[in-house]
Formats: sequence, C-alpha cells, structure tokens
Amino acid sequence: MNTFSMNQLERYPIYLKYFKELQNEGIETISSPKIAAKLGYSEEQVRKDLQNVSLEPGRPKKGRSVRQLVDDIETFLGYRDSTSAVLVGCGHLGSALLNFPAFQEMGLEILAGFDTNVDLIGKEVAGKKIFSLDSMSEILPRLNAHIVIIAVPASAAQNVADMAIKAGAKGIWNFAPAHIDVPGNVVIENVNLASSLAVLSHRLNQVLANEEKK
Amino acid sequence: MNTFSMNQLERYPIYLKYFKELQNEGIETISSPKIAAKLGYSEEQVRKDLQNVSLEPGRPKKGRSVRQLVDDIETFLGYRDSTSAVLVGCGHLGSALLNFPAFQEMGLEILAGFDTNVDLIGKEVAGKKIFSLDSMSEILPRLNAHIVIIAVPASAAQNVADMAIKAGAKGIWNFAPAHIDVPGNVVIENVNLASSLAVLSHRLNQVLANEEKK
Repeated sequence: MNTFSMNQLERYPIYLKYFKELQNEGIETISSPKIAAKLGYSEEQVRKDLQNVSLEPGRPKKGRSVRQLVDDIETFLGYRDSTSAVLVGCGHLGSALLNFPAFQEMGLEILAGFDTNVDLIGKEVAGKKIFSLDSMSEILPRLNAHIVIIAVPASAAQNVADMAIKAGAKGIWNFAPAHIDVPGNVVIENVNLASSLAVLSHRLNQVLANEEKK
Repeated sequence: MNTFSMNQLERYPIYLKYFKELQNEGIETISSPKIAAKLGYSEEQVRKDLQNVSLEPGRPKKGRSVRQLVDDIETFLGYRDSTSAVLVGCGHLGSALLNFPAFQEMGLEILAGFDTNVDLIGKEVAGKKIFSLDSMSEILPRLNAHIVIIAVPASAAQNVADMAIKAGAKGIWNFAPAHIDVPGNVVIENVNLASSLAVLSHRLNQVLANEEKK
C-alpha cells in the first residue's frame, strides 16, 4: 500500500470535483498539464497523485479517461462503500451537519445524533433520531459506527471524545474549537474554523495593505 | 513583517486555545518544551512560532507569561479588531454559521446574510437580516464588509463568488464543496469538508486494518 501525505489526501476530493465537472460538460479525456494549470498544482504532482490511485496509465497525446479517473478516485476515497458515523451535539452546527446532503455522496452515513438537551432527545433531525448522550456507551456498539462527529461546545469536547472512545469509536471528526487528546489507536481529524479564518485574515490584511500602498 | 506559512498560521489558534485553558486553571507561566509536548509540535517549532508574534522573550527556568502570550496571539490574529463579513446561502450550513457564537471571539462579525429563497429574504437569522442576492452589489459596499462567506450549493459557488468580487469583496471564505477561481488580488480560503473526511477515512482504514492483523 502506498503511503499518502495529508496534503496529498486533501487533493483527491478537489480532483474528483473537477473531473465530475468535466463529465457534466461532456469532456472525455484530460491531460496532466491541463489539470495542473486548472487546479494550480505542478504537473509532476498531478502525475504522481493520479498514478498513485489509478491502474490505467495516461496515453500520450490523448490524455487520461475522465470517467476512469472519477471511478478510481471514488473507489480510493471510499465513496463507493459507506462509513457509518454518529454525531454528538445537535445544536446549530450539529443540525447543519446532520442535514448536509453532500456527506452521502462522500460515503459518510450519519446514523444517529446524541445530545444532553432534553428538548431534543427522542426527536428526529433530518430523519436521524437523537439519543441521550448518557446512552452512547450502549447504543454506539449496537450501531457499529466507527466515527464519532463532535459538534459540542469547546468546553465539553474532551469529555465527549473520552466517552466516545470508551464506547468503541475509532475515529473522531472534531468540529469543536478545542484541542482533544486521543490514544494512539484512535484517529482524530480537526475541522478548525479558527485556523482557517486566521489564514484568511492574515492574507487579506496583506492584500489590503498592498492596495493602500498603491 | 515576517512571512508566515499556512501551517504556521493554522497553529496560532491552537496555541491560543491551550493558553486560555492554562489561564482558566490559574497557571501563569509555561515553557516551550511543555507546550511542545502537550500539542505534539517540536520544541524548535514552538520557540520559533512564539518568537514570531511575541516581543517578550521567554526567561530561562521561568518560561513565558501565559497572559502575555494570549495578548500577543490575539493581537496577531486580529481578534482585537473585528473584521466585517457577509454570508451568502442561509440554508442549514449558512444558518449554523450565522449562529456560531465563537466567530465573535475570533474578531469576525457577520453583518448580514444573502439568499435567493423568497421565504428567507427580509427575515432575520441570529439577529442578522437576510437580503436578496440580487441586491449584493448595492449593499456590500455600503456595509464595508471585506469578507464574503459562501455557503451555497457547489453548483452556485463560482457564480456567487464572481458577484461578490464584482461588488468589492477582497476575501472569500468558501464552505461550498467546489473549486472557485478568483483573481490575484482576492484571497480565498476553502473549508473543504470532503478533504478533511478523506484524511480521516484513510487513516481510520489503516487503524482498522492494523487491528484485524492482530
């Protein structure tokens, strides 16, 4: 099995999006230089990325089959077999995630929600039942869900992660603006909006400072 | 002005979170090796990161002042002066972002929403008025908002970005699962949930495969 860097893994959904757009436009083949120019990657990087997930080599002059590339990347990313998850914290952000239609395309199926709010427990959000957080240790193993999505306030995030891991979670997708410690046999991926905003703001300030100089 | 890599910028909100936790626990000083161990960075990286934003050097044996570090990072990240933004696409995800309390702490103020849904236009979400997307070219300059947050379906994202840039937006924070082209004088930052999920799924599959081997 090839090993993939984080940055490389992050590029595959972006390739996939682009190749699906090409399919919609009826374009059947594409060359690495064109992909590189469109997405702002180097040609070498594109060739390497695609070789890593595709058995079929590109043919000189004709380029690669767009349909084959879509197939290969969807298979590689696991979009063809769905992964089960549950979500903890069904407030504004959590409800939005329960309602997010794109997750199914990505092979992620959220089976249920958990919350501590008695007004939510027993109700359904986007067709998913909301259970009491206290029942997670009992329900999570029954659902056979490996991923727990955390959308609780920062102050509760570590506690919820500890409960989830105790109940058998192997992957944590953390949307809370908090650092979470996990043991070595559990995978954590953070969606850190604060970090993303920091990058945006810093670069925006540079652009605005440049414009003032003119 | 120092130049900062994306990865480095992304670390500052994580430092900040940790230092605020220390403050809450009444801890007044902290050493770089301890920070490095807690957050999983190298000591050299921590020292370099903190030197880049802080005037005060750490004192050997005593370490750095936690309060000073919080001040320095908040100032560096612009949390002390707020940046104005508007949000386009007030569906599930957009509403969640309008309701997200942490943005104010991060110095981001969302002034208004835009949508094409006549049932939403004229209403308020989280105290923010929703305007018709058609009126953006008129309203955006009046609000003096530099950032446009895009939370529309992928198929509409490029079109909305084009409209926003024409209306004067200098920064795009894109939550739509789509690649958006922007001119060189506009900054774009993508929150790509598909990429984040791809990284999580890939690493999770490795963990599960390892466990099966045992």
